[in-house]
Amino acid sequence: MKNRINLSKYNIRTDLVIDQEIQEKNTKVTNINKDLKITEIEINKKQAMELNRKAGIYITIEFKDATNHEDKIEIEKCLTNEINKLLKRLNIKEKDEGIIIGLGNRFSTADSLGPKCIDKILVTRHLFQLKTNVKEGIRSISAITPGVMANTGIESFEIIESIIKKIKPKFIIAIDALASSSIERINKTIQLTDTGIHPGSGIGNNRKELSKDTLNIPIISIGIPTVVESSIIVNDTINYLFKHISYLKNNLAENKLIINRSTEYKNKIKNLELNPIEKKEISGIIGTLSEEEKKSLISEVLKSIHYDLIVTPKEIDFLIDNLSEILANSINKSLHLALNDWQIRIFKLQ
Amino acid sequence: MKNRINLSKYNIRTDLVIDQEIQEKNTKVTNINKDLKITEIEINKKQAMELNRKAGIYITIEFKDATNHEDKIEIEKCLTNEINKLLKRLNIKEKDEGIIIGLGNRFSTADSLGPKCIDKILVTRHLFQLKTNVKEGIRSISAITPGVMANTGIESFEIIESIIKKIKPKFIIAIDALASSSIERINKTIQLTDTGIHPGSGIGNNRKELSKDTLNIPIISIGIPTVVESSIIVNDTINYLFKHISYLKNNLAENKLIINRSTEYKNKIKNLELNPIEKKEISGIIGTLSEEEKKSLISEVLKSIHYDLIVTPKEIDFLIDNLSEILANSINKSLHLALNDWQIRIFKLQ
Amino acid sequence: MKNRINLSKYNIRTDLVIDQEIQEKNTKVTNINKDLKITEIEINKKQAMELNRKAGIYITIEFKDATNHEDKIEIEKCLTNEINKLLKRLNIKEKDEGIIIGLGNRFSTADSLGPKCIDKILVTRHLFQLKTNVKEGIRSISAITPGVMANTGIESFEIIESIIKKIKPKFIIAIDALASSSIERINKTIQLTDTGIHPGSGIGNNRKELSKDTLNIPIISIGIPTVVESSIIVNDTINYLFKHISYLKNNLAENKLIINRSTEYKNKIKNLELNPIEKKEISGIIGTLSEEEKKSLISEVLKSIHYDLIVTPKEIDFLIDNLSEILANSINKSLHLALNDWQIRIFKLQ
Amino acid sequence: MKNRINLSKYNIRTDLVIDQEIQEKNTKVTNINKDLKITEIEINKKQAMELNRKAGIYITIEFKDATNHEDKIEIEKCLTNEINKLLKRLNIKEKDEGIIIGLGNRFSTADSLGPKCIDKILVTRHLFQLKTNVKEGIRSISAITPGVMANTGIESFEIIESIIKKIKPKFIIAIDALASSSIERINKTIQLTDTGIHPGSGIGNNRKELSKDTLNIPIISIGIPTVVESSIIVNDTINYLFKHISYLKNNLAENKLIINRSTEYKNKIKNLELNPIEKKEISGIIGTLSEEEKKSLISEVLKSIHYDLIVTPKEIDFLIDNLSEILANSINKSLHLALNDWQIRIFKLQ
Repeated sequence: MKNRINLSKYNIRTDLVIDQEIQEKNTKVTNINKDLKITEIEINKKQAMELNRKAGIYITIEFKDATNHEDKIEIEKCLTNEINKLLKRLNIKEKDEGIIIGLGNRFSTADSLGPKCIDKILVTRHLFQLKTNVKEGIRSISAITPGVMANTGIESFEIIESIIKKIKPKFIIAIDALASSSIERINKTIQLTDTGIHPGSGIGNNRKELSKDTLNIPIISIGIPTVVESSIIVNDTINYLFKHISYLKNNLAENKLIINRSTEYKNKIKNLELNPIEKKEISGIIGTLSEEEKKSLISEVLKSIHYDLIVTPKEIDFLIDNLSEILANSINKSLHLALNDWQIRIFKLQ
Repeated sequence: MKNRINLSKYNIRTDLVIDQEIQEKNTKVTNINKDLKITEIEINKKQAMELNRKAGIYITIEFKDATNHEDKIEIEKCLTNEINKLLKRLNIKEKDEGIIIGLGNRFSTADSLGPKCIDKILVTRHLFQLKTNVKEGIRSISAITPGVMANTGIESFEIIESIIKKIKPKFIIAIDALASSSIERINKTIQLTDTGIHPGSGIGNNRKELSKDTLNIPIISIGIPTVVESSIIVNDTINYLFKHISYLKNNLAENKLIINRSTEYKNKIKNLELNPIEKKEISGIIGTLSEEEKKSLISEVLKSIHYDLIVTPKEIDFLIDNLSEILANSINKSLHLALNDWQIRIFKLQ
Repeated sequence: MKNRINLSKYNIRTDLVIDQEIQEKNTKVTNINKDLKITEIEINKKQAMELNRKAGIYITIEFKDATNHEDKIEIEKCLTNEINKLLKRLNIKEKDEGIIIGLGNRFSTADSLGPKCIDKILVTRHLFQLKTNVKEGIRSISAITPGVMANTGIESFEIIESIIKKIKPKFIIAIDALASSSIERINKTIQLTDTGIHPGSGIGNNRKELSKDTLNIPIISIGIPTVVESSIIVNDTINYLFKHISYLKNNLAENKLIINRSTEYKNKIKNLELNPIEKKEISGIIGTLSEEEKKSLISEVLKSIHYDLIVTPKEIDFLIDNLSEILANSINKSLHLALNDWQIRIFKLQ
Repeated sequence: MKNRINLSKYNIRTDLVIDQEIQEKNTKVTNINKDLKITEIEINKKQAMELNRKAGIYITIEFKDATNHEDKIEIEKCLTNEINKLLKRLNIKEKDEGIIIGLGNRFSTADSLGPKCIDKILVTRHLFQLKTNVKEGIRSISAITPGVMANTGIESFEIIESIIKKIKPKFIIAIDALASSSIERINKTIQLTDTGIHPGSGIGNNRKELSKDTLNIPIISIGIPTVVESSIIVNDTINYLFKHISYLKNNLAENKLIINRSTEYKNKIKNLELNPIEKKEISGIIGTLSEEEKKSLISEVLKSIHYDLIVTPKEIDFLIDNLSEILANSINKSLHLALNDWQIRIFKLQ
């Protein structure tokens, strides 16, 4: 029963980011350094209608490596800052009580980002409840891991809604592992939004989203794509393959080995546009398909031969350890201004 | 913050059994075999007032070894049977929906009995919710592990109460690791009652008990003592020491080695009563103290030198694995009549 | 340091099976049922020279689902039988002492098959050493998990060689998680061979293989592919895509939906051979590449854009639990003829 | 089989310290602060013969609380310093290669100190072996966790001896959880010695000790008592009880509550000596027994009633986390002079 029967049906939360096309409109990009970039998009209600997306703020932090100590420090600073700005924009005051929710399944490594993050959250609500003397700059924070329906028999939304009704926090921060919509984002982006999140979504059940609309308090959702469908890997690779072949054809003089070693090569070919004739030449019938047709054909063939896997990098245990630590450190620092450096890192007050 | 600051103050749930003196009144004892014994006591309201205990049923299953396969099978049978009888007495019907609650701290081995048991509970509520076709003899069961206040910032009671209000089960089974009131019971008794249980009790906060009075649905509490105060070890040992010395004095002819090897020795000396003169002779001033005085003196000395530890056997990891399996197997079998033998043991339907 | 610096360089052990072309020559195929198939190939020394493979026995057990109880029972029976036959062919006697070696990294889920299997192995050598009375039909077995070089600083081979020199077992069974050479095999095959295995191979260091040649005692290697390079996913999918498009073109009359639902579809298209003209029509330049060229082109593009991931299915925790149990149960049953059914499943004698 | 059959027989390693009486002779005591004290004793060969102990250095670091961040920092400094001094006295050079050995059972919390410490050791030997460029001030270190005989079937000594023969380090640091000889020491002392250690000792098998005599290279053993026999708790408490009663009798005027609150009370009564008449008055026959007789009587009564438990504090998971971190940080810092502060704490070079 545990995590078994066709979880793919109700266990996947999708990317919080919005697509490239939309991004071009209201986007603010900040390059912190060559390996760290923030993209912020704000969609107003009118645009939201047109785009069929929820109105609100979408922030993406892109980084190269979350396992290197110096890079982690930079990512944490950057994320702390973005959470702080979001708290302000959502009108959350310094002493407002919050609840942190770690979505996902503790026992499934790729889905354990939320619970592993909660393990490192500095929880303080009980100190206030027990009338312990808590110093200035520490606010009241509780934290829960609602688990997954296959293990509890209860939808996460039901658990969260009932606890929030009871303890009445002023805001929510929800953390979740997501399915990536692109091979590029997997374990390499942190996505924030104030538009809500769907735990255990995908059962055609839109009212179960965690959002201000359903819970009546502001929510900051923080997600990291940790898994990807094999069909997306295939499709993304085929697209890069087209561009790679096109590039090679048109740049025969260049030394192939040099190209490959260049860390800039990805950016170089990423925005190459192939014309239809070139596409057909390179890949025949497949090259004549629209992006949507190609995607659905790949998905169809993988399903029909039963290889439509959802996969995660083999280093996922180590990645989740690092990513959950980055999230928890940043959240702790944002919420408790009085914390000193080692308190953030050891998740306790004294 | 995690499990740190003086948890002893609010983390201990005490024995569910009632004391020896009371037991003598309304007791039914069943010896399944020489290593397995069931004691059942029912306290009516009038007695409850006199005894200052809650009215209801108290069942104790005593066993010798929960780590031996054959013994485990026997204990499971016995516990399944007692749960079944309690379900009937509480008027719970075959299709009534239930919720299983695993109290305690998953990350503290001696306190992890509840959560480890939940990991092995067959959860089915989502199958009914998702309109999956579930066969006859399987009922709707959900399961939660509310965690401990030091990790969530929220009292277990608050979490449980709000979820129960939301999903409206017909009955509760709550599992918890307890503090033993006697060295003899530690990891060697399973205690059941319909009178409720106190998660995170001891803060002088009696209204927070999980019980029919507070939650309006019947509750079966199942507890196993897994820890014991060092003062209880000392007091119990001193009492046995008195009896041992008395026995030796009065049975000088017997071969000491033979005595020690006898598995019957404990029972032989257990009920020895020493008269005051003998007590004083054996242990001077200490021997003249009443049981209460002696206990409080031991507790006082241990506290004043900071050795008032609460301890658990060093094999606790292994014991919790076995005990949580026994509880889960028995609960699964009691609740789902259609389960076959391997389904109980692998915790899933297919 | 733990599992960090570019482990991909030295952490991957490859498939134990030999390629399709070779398989056709000396192959014996047994279909146990429609979801369970055994393929056995024996390569003699002359063939080994020609094929540039090691001479010996290669057995592949293919199954559909290792998470279903009934299927697990069948796979276990089948694997027990194959191990028994191999033990006989390698001239290992009923009382010969053995050592079981669990290769891989306990802390990296996809690589933890070996250590997790060892946790369930019935270890008995110390009973013989301590002169405990062990009943007939139980042999002397020890078990080790040498860990990985990133965590120990020592090559697995060095640890294993030195322990074997010391305790002098008569044979080895080595268990390891492997990298799959095909999307079809991942978590769906058990591979056995008597030709040895390379722990931490790939550093161009062939003398470090575990084999009869290097250790002077027979070795049975048991591997399960648990990870796969993304380039293999892409290549395999493209090949199926060609066949799928070809099939659709040539069978326009058939209802597409019916095709997809058919569990036989994979087998139907698997052996389709496309002629060069059809290939070019379907996929242009890409269709004109040889299998080797296409593979290396895909690998090249993924490397140059830094997406050459090695991935594992997101359900890997659950799969490893089931697969390690199947291996341990089968090994225990093969080695100790006197074990009854629950002893195999609880990994202890009494 | 795992950790089951009467491990008490071969699983207990005893205190590394030497008794109070001996300590008085060659002792050097350093009080770092009121909660941190170092005691060093050196026994020469002549004394060793007289005392029936091994000649060598015995260092004990006593502390009050290993779970508080500031105290941990102080303990780490102090331990780093003691290890450094020992390395020098044992003539170990800055570039000498070492091996760290984590004794004990990873799966039994109270016995997992060694393996949990190894998880945090900075391992570098493979970098030297793979000819990676390692900076000055980092030495070659390997690390192993030999496991316990019940899980491997092999004595730890055999595993260690064979690996050391193979990789030829210049020195050993061995870490182990110990059984305390006093209630005061449990989780509150770190004990170092250069005289060796007995993994899995107690089978009357003295040649199996890890020591310079048996392995031909110097060894620093670091142990922390994490478990204690219930008979020791009882005996120590009875002794304090005698002193407490004596103190109360002789200081009737003092306010009892004030006494108990005093943190100095333990030290006040610790060295009280009762004369035989007072002892008999306080505790009759028991008071007339010698320390040895009393101990053996308590042990006898606990054994005969089957309550001779070995116990550990219920917070053991949390204590082991903190203690293993203190040991690993100190060892890493001592061995690699070039490590900066975060490298020590994250256990990796970059």
